[in-house]
Amino acid sequence: MDQHPVYLDHNGTTPVDPAVLEAMLPYLREEFGNPSSATALGRRAREAVETAREAVAALIGARAEEVTFTSGGTEASNIAIRGAAARRGERPVVVTSTIEHPATEACCALLERDGMAIRRIPPGPDGCLDPARVEAGIDGRTALVTLIHAQNEIGTLQPIAEVSRAARRAGALVHADAAQSVGKVAVEVDALGVDLLTIAGHKLYAPKGIGALYARTGTGLAPLLVGAGQERGRRPGTENVAFIAGLGAACRIAAARLAEDAARQDGLARHLLRRLREEVPGLILVGHPERRLPNTVNVLFPGVTGNALLAACPEILASTGSACHAGSDLPSAILLALGLAPDRAVGAVRLSLGRTTSGDEIDRAARSLAAAWRRLAAREAA
Amino acid sequence: MDQHPVYLDHNGTTPVDPAVLEAMLPYLREEFGNPSSATALGRRAREAVETAREAVAALIGARAEEVTFTSGGTEASNIAIRGAAARRGERPVVVTSTIEHPATEACCALLERDGMAIRRIPPGPDGCLDPARVEAGIDGRTALVTLIHAQNEIGTLQPIAEVSRAARRAGALVHADAAQSVGKVAVEVDALGVDLLTIAGHKLYAPKGIGALYARTGTGLAPLLVGAGQERGRRPGTENVAFIAGLGAACRIAAARLAEDAARQDGLARHLLRRLREEVPGLILVGHPERRLPNTVNVLFPGVTGNALLAACPEILASTGSACHAGSDLPSAILLALGLAPDRAVGAVRLSLGRTTSGDEIDRAARSLAAAWRRLAAREAA
Repeated sequence: MDQHPVYLDHNGTTPVDPAVLEAMLPYLREEFGNPSSATALGRRAREAVETAREAVAALIGARAEEVTFTSGGTEASNIAIRGAAARRGERPVVVTSTIEHPATEACCALLERDGMAIRRIPPGPDGCLDPARVEAGIDGRTALVTLIHAQNEIGTLQPIAEVSRAARRAGALVHADAAQSVGKVAVEVDALGVDLLTIAGHKLYAPKGIGALYARTGTGLAPLLVGAGQERGRRPGTENVAFIAGLGAACRIAAARLAEDAARQDGLARHLLRRLREEVPGLILVGHPERRLPNTVNVLFPGVTGNALLAACPEILASTGSACHAGSDLPSAILLALGLAPDRAVGAVRLSLGRTTSGDEIDRAARSLAAAWRRLAAREAA
Repeated sequence: MDQHPVYLDHNGTTPVDPAVLEAMLPYLREEFGNPSSATALGRRAREAVETAREAVAALIGARAEEVTFTSGGTEASNIAIRGAAARRGERPVVVTSTIEHPATEACCALLERDGMAIRRIPPGPDGCLDPARVEAGIDGRTALVTLIHAQNEIGTLQPIAEVSRAARRAGALVHADAAQSVGKVAVEVDALGVDLLTIAGHKLYAPKGIGALYARTGTGLAPLLVGAGQERGRRPGTENVAFIAGLGAACRIAAARLAEDAARQDGLARHLLRRLREEVPGLILVGHPERRLPNTVNVLFPGVTGNALLAACPEILASTGSACHAGSDLPSAILLALGLAPDRAVGAVRLSLGRTTSGDEIDRAARSLAAAWRRLAAREAA
């Protein structure tokens, strides 16, 4: 029997797809040109960057020139949120939620210190934002609405399209942090109605250290970094050609496999949840049962902490929440924002499946987690 | 006879050292953990990041905790210059030079728009700053002195250590942009007396997309990106583990080879200059003949433009100045800042040698460049 650990932390980070690595290797070997250089080597590097830009744009239904490469999701969200706010004119308000990624929340906190008003809308107990409630927060003073598309800890999908329509009527920009959704579900900038969108490479089988920002043509943004004119001045600094080529390949693969991957992972995730419910009485799924990523199962184990459970079960690689929250015995702020009691929230384990997750792995994971829970619960009761 | 092109644009970008690629590959394959994750995979990624941090620190005589990884030199300089200026207190002045990299100049221009005074000191005709002249610009109102250590187009080394002593007396911080010098000459933060120092991976055989900022313990810096707490909050965003491991390997290699590489490239560069002077009457070396990087030869060809010369000689991959300036027929602003007349400055070609440059390649380069010059000069005279 195969005894490699079962990796169920794909929302934390994904492995690099072997085809993505293959696409990058030439640019880490002989094709090492600087895209700003006029040499033949430089021109080929430039072509690789532009080909990748087209692939990223194609995955989200954008135009190539609307895509700017960044060092990752955090930088993309910083440029989007702070760059849009810097051009806010007479609009002093940002509307967001209480269940954002730390990059978004930190940008909002920074703007708040600089005098902007931040309206943080809480989700319902199912982890979904009520569009009417978000819309009620939007008015003619709103510069930007920034929302996470798929919540990274619980996987719920937020009603971006509905909110965008209201934002548009009010003349506000809309930013979606799609770091967790791109590559897992269809993300199409016109269907979502967004002006700005964050992509993180390492959530879709490209490496850590690359991301992209979509900015609809005409969206005024102050740049965050200044320097030479790379990325049309929107993001100066010599381009990470290899990882840009990798992100392009990852987007091409995601576009080709999206429906198939999503259906397969959804089936496995439902099977995992069913197995865990059978074996762990009182186990609860966090978040909306349907409006969610197909790969994410955040469950509350009763009577134990998620940390103790995962420590008792080293053959399962998973986390209790976001990677940033790793190892903490404090309950996740996201789960508290859903209204969960702290003593329930500490039982959370986020199981996030990926492209290579097999049915056998899911069975092993269910068995191991249930067995570990029984051992811990018995000890607790003794 | 070997007819691969001769790459003499190492100041634009270096190839990735094969040993650096080897050091990165595990983190692009099976060791894909997120360093913020508590899983075994995450812990190994964290160890890789910290091992690399020690290697970077060791190369520049710093402590590991004084090194922050960034997406490259531009980001490092942005954090250093703008981060220091944001904590300036009652000091409204930045002292810099007229021959800085665009990242530094763009940061200074931004601070200038925000109300700071920027004193830009010009170099002498030899491309070196006169320390007395820089010191005369420093006083109790100076927040920061930011200077390029090795000028990227002409290779001259600037008197950072002398300037630092004056800055320290005045209570000002000192930032050195050492993107071009680290790995080419000894760079030691205490000997230079700097508080902040920029490192760019792709100038020392690591890939494009990684860099580091040295910040002396106790140096107050406002962060540029905000988000989760990575890099102790100084640079949030999931770490680029693979490229960080690569930068660590590149620094270990540079430390081991520095003296030998410098001596060999210096010998080859002098030979190249000698050969060109023999074959091209009126050819002039730009910048100080001794206070310079061992690998950089910026020469003015008489009666032709550098662009035309390089276009006539595609077997030599070089540039007329910085990569950012590529393909332009306008004279380099750096050369104009040295007092060169525009019609002389357009004849500039920057030949920058590297670790793999061979004596045979240098002979071929000298022959090809001289032959192309003769063809163009004859056509010009016809």
